[in-house]
Amino acid sequence: MKQDEILPGENPGALNALFEPRSVAIIGASDDAARIGGRPIRYLRQAGYSGAIYPVNPNRDTVQGLPAFKSISTIPHAVDLAILALPSEQVVEAVAACAEKGVKAVIVFSSGFAETDEEGAGRQNAIRQIARQSGMRVLGPNCLGAFNSATGFFGTFTQAFDDGVLPPGPISIASQSGACGGHLGYLCKQRGIGIQYWITTGNEADVDIAECILWMASSPHVKVIVVYAEAIRDGATFIRALETARRHRKPVVMLKVGRSDSGARAAASHTGALAGQDAVYDAILRQYGVFRADSIEQMLDIAVACAHGVFPPNRRLGIVTVSGGLGVQMSDAAEACGLEVGLLPVEAQARIKTMLPFAAVANPIDVTAQAINDLTVIDRCLEIALTDGDYGAIVCFLTSAPAASSMTEPLLQAFTDVHRRFPERLIVLSFAAPSAVVRRFEQAGFLVYEDVNRAVKAIAALASFAETFASSLPAPGSPSPAGTEQSTRSALRVTAADLASLNEHVAKNLLAAAGIPALPERVIRDADQARLAAAELGCPVALKILSPDIAHKTEIGGVVLNLPTPDAAASAAMALLDRVATLRPEARLTGVLVAPMCTGGIETICGVFRDPVFGPMVMFGLGGVYVEVLKDVAFRLAPFDEDEALSMVREIRGYAILEGTRGSPPADIGALTRALSALSRFAATNRDTIAEIDINPFVVMPQGQGALALDALIVPMRPDEMPHAVKPH
Amino acid sequence: MKQDEILPGENPGALNALFEPRSVAIIGASDDAARIGGRPIRYLRQAGYSGAIYPVNPNRDTVQGLPAFKSISTIPHAVDLAILALPSEQVVEAVAACAEKGVKAVIVFSSGFAETDEEGAGRQNAIRQIARQSGMRVLGPNCLGAFNSATGFFGTFTQAFDDGVLPPGPISIASQSGACGGHLGYLCKQRGIGIQYWITTGNEADVDIAECILWMASSPHVKVIVVYAEAIRDGATFIRALETARRHRKPVVMLKVGRSDSGARAAASHTGALAGQDAVYDAILRQYGVFRADSIEQMLDIAVACAHGVFPPNRRLGIVTVSGGLGVQMSDAAEACGLEVGLLPVEAQARIKTMLPFAAVANPIDVTAQAINDLTVIDRCLEIALTDGDYGAIVCFLTSAPAASSMTEPLLQAFTDVHRRFPERLIVLSFAAPSAVVRRFEQAGFLVYEDVNRAVKAIAALASFAETFASSLPAPGSPSPAGTEQSTRSALRVTAADLASLNEHVAKNLLAAAGIPALPERVIRDADQARLAAAELGCPVALKILSPDIAHKTEIGGVVLNLPTPDAAASAAMALLDRVATLRPEARLTGVLVAPMCTGGIETICGVFRDPVFGPMVMFGLGGVYVEVLKDVAFRLAPFDEDEALSMVREIRGYAILEGTRGSPPADIGALTRALSALSRFAATNRDTIAEIDINPFVVMPQGQGALALDALIVPMRPDEMPHAVKPH
Repeated sequence: MKQDEILPGENPGALNALFEPRSVAIIGASDDAARIGGRPIRYLRQAGYSGAIYPVNPNRDTVQGLPAFKSISTIPHAVDLAILALPSEQVVEAVAACAEKGVKAVIVFSSGFAETDEEGAGRQNAIRQIARQSGMRVLGPNCLGAFNSATGFFGTFTQAFDDGVLPPGPISIASQSGACGGHLGYLCKQRGIGIQYWITTGNEADVDIAECILWMASSPHVKVIVVYAEAIRDGATFIRALETARRHRKPVVMLKVGRSDSGARAAASHTGALAGQDAVYDAILRQYGVFRADSIEQMLDIAVACAHGVFPPNRRLGIVTVSGGLGVQMSDAAEACGLEVGLLPVEAQARIKTMLPFAAVANPIDVTAQAINDLTVIDRCLEIALTDGDYGAIVCFLTSAPAASSMTEPLLQAFTDVHRRFPERLIVLSFAAPSAVVRRFEQAGFLVYEDVNRAVKAIAALASFAETFASSLPAPGSPSPAGTEQSTRSALRVTAADLASLNEHVAKNLLAAAGIPALPERVIRDADQARLAAAELGCPVALKILSPDIAHKTEIGGVVLNLPTPDAAASAAMALLDRVATLRPEARLTGVLVAPMCTGGIETICGVFRDPVFGPMVMFGLGGVYVEVLKDVAFRLAPFDEDEALSMVREIRGYAILEGTRGSPPADIGALTRALSALSRFAATNRDTIAEIDINPFVVMPQGQGALALDALIVPMRPDEMPHAVKPH
Repeated sequence: MKQDEILPGENPGALNALFEPRSVAIIGASDDAARIGGRPIRYLRQAGYSGAIYPVNPNRDTVQGLPAFKSISTIPHAVDLAILALPSEQVVEAVAACAEKGVKAVIVFSSGFAETDEEGAGRQNAIRQIARQSGMRVLGPNCLGAFNSATGFFGTFTQAFDDGVLPPGPISIASQSGACGGHLGYLCKQRGIGIQYWITTGNEADVDIAECILWMASSPHVKVIVVYAEAIRDGATFIRALETARRHRKPVVMLKVGRSDSGARAAASHTGALAGQDAVYDAILRQYGVFRADSIEQMLDIAVACAHGVFPPNRRLGIVTVSGGLGVQMSDAAEACGLEVGLLPVEAQARIKTMLPFAAVANPIDVTAQAINDLTVIDRCLEIALTDGDYGAIVCFLTSAPAASSMTEPLLQAFTDVHRRFPERLIVLSFAAPSAVVRRFEQAGFLVYEDVNRAVKAIAALASFAETFASSLPAPGSPSPAGTEQSTRSALRVTAADLASLNEHVAKNLLAAAGIPALPERVIRDADQARLAAAELGCPVALKILSPDIAHKTEIGGVVLNLPTPDAAASAAMALLDRVATLRPEARLTGVLVAPMCTGGIETICGVFRDPVFGPMVMFGLGGVYVEVLKDVAFRLAPFDEDEALSMVREIRGYAILEGTRGSPPADIGALTRALSALSRFAATNRDTIAEIDINPFVVMPQGQGALALDALIVPMRPDEMPHAVKPH
């Protein structure tokens, strides 16, 4: 990478020309408004774009009534943005001409690049080179462009807006897939949802989706960010974008496709293979508070809820329903997504009971069909629930009552009255009605979902965002977020000498210095030293061969356990050294490890592997079958604090085993989370030199008795994997 | 229960008067068509009901233009069905009058019965008594009635049909909740779905939902049964209904609310407590091939798919998409719900490649936007996939292309052409468009879902139904389904003498006779017998005290393991007998069990508990923390065959442990499933006398070496729990 190249993500302002261009040239402009080179001109004019529009077409004097130019260079004004609607063979030359002209950003619609063949990949690389050398930003190729509905800039040829463009709104969308971006645009239009910024990144020769998310996270006009992605190329910028969004309290709702195993896999390390690429995304999205949607429908459901802007302060859900059965269904749905259907205080229940003697009043509050006949009942029940229930949110199910023409206005009035008295509270409605009726309630400030499960799920998502926004980001002095300065952590940095001499003993010492405790142990070279070490450490002890050339110690009898006396340790050490000399005469021998036997505790596995995109990931699980067969593991991007470590530990299904089961005391979970957080800082500090860490087993003793690494492996990165700066010379 | 009472579920024809009445009286008839007593008359006339309508109102000569009667007894004709819209206090008397008149069925709309207070419960009981004694069937009270759209019989006051009733259709609906039933009706109307029969059962004083499902399962006019239920009262009829539906290849789609723990729990036995009522429902619905929906939306999605009537012959899904990104999303969704995204044969791929050089062709087949411009591409790709892909179903994603007015007809034509050539194949479409456009495709015979995930989920549900229909029901000679004759299984029946003398040894013998193997063992009473038994059985052996008064054997040293010689067994037996005599002098002593030590194998738990509604449920899990902490258990209603036992064993998360993990051989799963099926037959045969069975551990040895009960407990039913017929006198 050359010095004069501009790094993606370093300067989010560099995307301004893509989202806020003051002038647009269309190269390959068509007079036919339905064609790829004609549609953007049509959209720009329909949307009332206030900037200059310069069609470029060497064969025409005018395009769609606008004066046309023979080439980009003949335009007598500065051009902010150029859209290229050309055959792929002509694209590189045109991009170069744009750079020459001083165009700030280019959108390449054309396909036929890296997605096609080697030749196309070469063209794409040429585009990237021009972008990096000139500083001109390039969107695409093979994309559907971008728009900013507030300025009328519609630099796209998606057919989704054939019958009219979209108004601005609180939501902005970034999509790698053009077709999916267009589809999202259509669905928003159909649902009456406005979009401010919309961008599709296609092949990402230069501008990638992480940078777009970062730009949106930094824009005052964006309230909710919707992302469709297949793979993140720039992990550090992506993390920075998510941190920025969280700092500005902007929900990110993301559909990351490729859950199936066919995606790229982490390097073939033991722990890495357990993850698979998707588990890494899943962990990171959870860690950074992104809502990971299952479907496009759910993504829009949650985005709309976020755009509403009320985030419940707690997870208690009040349920008001005209159907007892649906009340149970909502309780089920709430429990399934982590909301709490807490009881109304008894005194408040009594007040509802005087109104509705036969109703269920504890929560769900079943107001029965009577409430439809006497709307003051709904009003008073809602008031009581809002005042006395300490509910973060209320969901209210109304069957299809608002659809009856005689009921629409009275119900709207009743709810609007309540809303006026409790403007800061979240009241989500669920009913079935023609969309015109639904729109009326939405315009009055209510979220409306036809299906109660979708209503409840949306509330749960809002509660999660509230928690994400409330959780403080690491303070400047504390462990830095991934991808930023490591200088303050130099004490944790592993030296080249350490890396050169790595073995189990060295690994444990490095980890112990980083805050991951291990048993005291000694390296000995003969029987006398073994006897002395055993006496000092206290028997029983274990012996383990230390050799860089012997990976599978047990296979050659390189491990001896439960030696009851120093003398037994001495003779076992002698026998062990003899055995190794006989069986593996060529093996280099560092010595023999003597360590006290450890009994009790719960075996866990703590590991680190390097994700090619995001860097060091920490993995945790219970030992043995739990990880290897049940795949009951949790992942987090390093570094993280002890709170995050606790959420990680709690995430595994077997967490109850650590809490203590019949006859077993609770484990020292505090010691475990301290160690995991310390491991994450160690891994982040040495991200450029350490490829993998395996602490197996890491034994967690009963509460108050700590936790210990009984075995540890650190695998250094191969020199060819290291970044240039740290490569040994 | 008296002899002359009619058992619910015994005579499904008895509901004919509810679904097919030839004349209807409305008691409490109102001239106001919006009131509860007026609305059914309005609906009956709007729907063109061909039978006689008899309004009953002592204060009026006519009601809504029809001649009114002073009382039911003054109607000069036979009355098939009477609808009661009266205050609850007048209902019992009116029901009695109807029975007197010879009315065949009554619908009680009124509330104020068991759901309200003791007095109401008394009234409900009185209604039930009249029904049982007269043979007149009663629907409700506290229900919204029933309808049959084919005859125009609308015996309901739901407001869902305020602006018009529904046409008939392949779907019929049974709902315990009136509000939910009405809501389902409204949603079907909104989606353009017809319903033939619709019934709400309310408090179920007489007619219950199981009987309604059975009636629908037996009706030639019902293709798909949709059920909303909170609790099943009559387990045997429910099972019979599901078996009947399966035999007639009728999908049952059910929303059973109450997943949360608040529902009724099985009796407080160890295994029962693990289940919770909802786990029992979940197991039974799975076992009998019911689709258990998560939400009302999903229930209708799946019901509509079933109504379409094409059930894919395999789980291979072909994906045709105009968006590569959505193709990945559909692959994810398919994998998540058990469909297989199998590759297209290479030769077929090549043929597509010639058409679309830049497309992905393996499956998903990404036809790109080009297919929209040249519809022959879609046609040919579909043809190739249908001919060469061996796909049970095809899902095709079209963004919002059909919404463009220029595209609607050409796309409809293209798909109709394909459909005509492959009429038996399932092609599901996913696109976004105004509902009028969606209806056109639906009317042309296509299933259309806006969201791809919902499309894929529907296909998976259809594939599951195909498997359910293909799996043969137990043949007449084989283990009978739950709730039917046990006479053929008399060999398995436990005698009163067995029940009186139950202990571990007796339990193991009974189970061994039923086909659940145990280790050979002896009961001894002194040291000499212990020596002899140990010598015969082979050492090492274990000793276990046998006493009906000592539940916790280990606490008083009542278990001694690993005795290496017959002499050691003798002296241990003597010591054990001394210890028990000293510590528990009052305890009755049956003897001491001598059994060989068993090593190796995988510990599992096999149990039986009695669900109060459905009867004996078999439970299976791995031993120790897997069951107690991870709750990794599976349940089935007894009896079942070995195939079902295998599906049960495969259902637990820890199944891979039985398949053999690193270093462990695969377990003898065949022996395990034989034992589970045998246990289920034993439990079913003794359903009236055995309350609980615990086989813990049941050790499954490596493949070919069988499986063994190492401990067993059979708990007889208390006399007051037994049905009258088997009570000891």
